[in-house]
Parts: sequence; structure tokens; C-alpha cells
Amino acid sequence: MHTFSVTLPDWVAEELPAGPLLTDTDRMALVHRLAARNPGEGGGGPFAALVVESETGRLVSAGVNCVLSSGLSVAHAEVVALSLAQTRLGGWDLGADGLPAHELVVNWRPCAQCYGATLWSGVRRLVVAGEGAELEELTGFDEGPVPEDWAERFEQRGIAVTVGVLRERALEVFAEYGRGAAAGEYTVYNARGNGG
Amino acid sequence: MHTFSVTLPDWVAEELPAGPLLTDTDRMALVHRLAARNPGEGGGGPFAALVVESETGRLVSAGVNCVLSSGLSVAHAEVVALSLAQTRLGGWDLGADGLPAHELVVNWRPCAQCYGATLWSGVRRLVVAGEGAELEELTGFDEGPVPEDWAERFEQRGIAVTVGVLRERALEVFAEYGRGAAAGEYTVYNARGNGG
Repeated sequence: MHTFSVTLPDWVAEELPAGPLLTDTDRMALVHRLAARNPGEGGGGPFAALVVESETGRLVSAGVNCVLSSGLSVAHAEVVALSLAQTRLGGWDLGADGLPAHELVVNWRPCAQCYGATLWSGVRRLVVAGEGAELEELTGFDEGPVPEDWAERFEQRGIAVTVGVLRERALEVFAEYGRGAAAGEYTVYNARGNGG
Repeated sequence: MHTFSVTLPDWVAEELPAGPLLTDTDRMALVHRLAARNPGEGGGGPFAALVVESETGRLVSAGVNCVLSSGLSVAHAEVVALSLAQTRLGGWDLGADGLPAHELVVNWRPCAQCYGATLWSGVRRLVVAGEGAELEELTGFDEGPVPEDWAERFEQRGIAVTVGVLRERALEVFAEYGRGAAAGEYTVYNARGNGG
């Protein structure tokens, strides 16, 4: 076994639109639909991400958290979406010369790992529904240490940041997951120690 | 294309010992051999990592940076080693009940992404040759923002940290890579903007 792989679950295709996603709201509404459905489908946590061509709204890839389904702790929604996009476009740099500008749309500020994964991906914009402690409080996940000036660090590297698209719906999805987890319906991975 | 995958290059197997790696020095010496060879083989940067059973020294997996060979920006050495180990052991948690304690051995303090990936992997110990600005200065790579108290954050989550095993050899490997990159032999990815 010298290979590891992640496969997007089949149900995700059912949720994807045929046409482009023209506005931030269109894009985030799809993220929230995928995130809300993922735990019940057994993929992992209530997290989803899209890679979209910023200008045209063409959907390049969708990702959901696949930690449980793939058995890989790295398989967060952002990593799945970014890696599928790079596989489809044929290279490690979504910002390469000759490509249109790409953006990552995700339902909360990325965790410590996905913060770095986004930095190295070549996307030129990051759109999140929100940031703050609510995610950890509502779901029980540990997000790890991310710098206070996280958005500025993206901007320094040429990645524009937009925060606050359909934020309330993100919190509803997290709260629903938290109730399910408390009732023993879901496995909260990444919870060891929970940082302090 | 609903799947992405990373395959370890065949040459890595040539470098792996038949028996266990009993000491930190044994483990790091292997990391440095893999890291030094990787750029010339076309995998990516001069970085390698091992997942080892801490007590017995059994090698569970080896990883090298595969960004160029896989076309995936996430495929840093730590992610490759951790994901191969999880694939072999059958789950997303290398610290699961019933498993022996595992550690990650790598030739420098992980970048922003791999810092998080290590946190979520279930390893109970991280061994690095060194930390500090030398990596970026010698190779031209951007490592991204990692908290000043990065080692303490690992310890808070039950991951012991050891810094300073065969440090000088790490710097030699980085310097050799830097000379090759300056001569146009290698592609330094992840270099956009370089943070500031």
C-alpha cells in the first residue's frame, strides 16, 4: 500500500447545480446544503467547500469532510475540494499562469491544517460564512491554533478574504450537528485533549 | 474524477531498512537520506517524514514531498507519511485505543498546513531536526504562519515534541537544494508572495 486516496461520496453529485453559481450567496447556500447532509451520510463533520471560478461562477469541484469515510484525518472538506480541483485542472497551482482566478468557499474559517492548505493551493480568494468560537462550542471540534491576524496573512499572499456570507445558516448546521453528537449519533474526531 | 490520490515513488523503498529504527538518530538519518534524494527524483522539495512505532522502532510508513509528482499542493511529506500510515492501519486515528503509540519524524518544524495535519493525526510524539528561519532562507519556501508557542500547543494536546536531532545535516540538505534551485534545477512551489 504505497497509495492513499479520497473519493467523494456519490450523493454529493445529487446536490450540484447544472449551471454556474453566480453570487456569493448562491455558492454558500450550496456549501450549507452539503455540510448539513454530510454527517448523516457518514462522511464526517458538518463541513463542505467549493472551488469556483471567481468570475464565471463555474463550479470546479465540491468537497465534504471525508475523515470517517476515507479513514484519513487530513480529508477535511477544504483539502478534498482543493485536491479534486487540482486533479481536474492538472496541477498543484490553482493560480498558475493561463488559468482563471479560483476561489475557495467554505462554511467557516479553516482549521489550523486547512488554513495552510488554502495558502498553498493557488486560490486567489477565500469566502467563509463566519469565524469565531461558535464552531467549536456548537460542534465540539478542536480547530487548533490559527493566528489572530489570519485574514491579513492571506491578503499578504494575494488571497482576498470575505467573511460573513449566510452566517446564521452556518450556525444552524453546527447546532444541529452538536445535538446529534450529544445524542451519540455522530463521531466527533479530532477531539483529543481539545487544546485548552 | 471524483477521486484524488498520492502514490509514493518506487525509489523510496530502496532506502528503507529491513529492521527497526531503534534511536532518534537512526530515524532522522533515514529522513535526511530521503529528503536529500527527493528533489533530484522529481518528487518535490527536500522534505521527508516517517511514522514509527515509538517503542519498537517499527517503521509504519515513509513519506516524501510529492507536490510536483502528484500535482497536489497538499502532498507534503508529513501528509504523505501520516496518510499512508492511516491507510495501512485502517483508520483516521493513529492514537486509537488498541494501537501502540506512534510518532512522526520529520526534517524541520512542520509548515502551517502540516502543523495542523500533525495535530489531527493521532501521533503522540513529534521529532524534528530543527526549527527556525533557516529553512526558508536556504530553500526559498514559504512555511506560513505557525504560532510562536507551537511546541506547547502540541504538548497541550498530548503530543510530546523533541527538537534538534541531526540538525546540521538538515541544514546541509536545505543548502544543497537552495543551490540547485538557484541554478534552475528545481521548481520552488508555494513561493507566491512569500508572506512578508
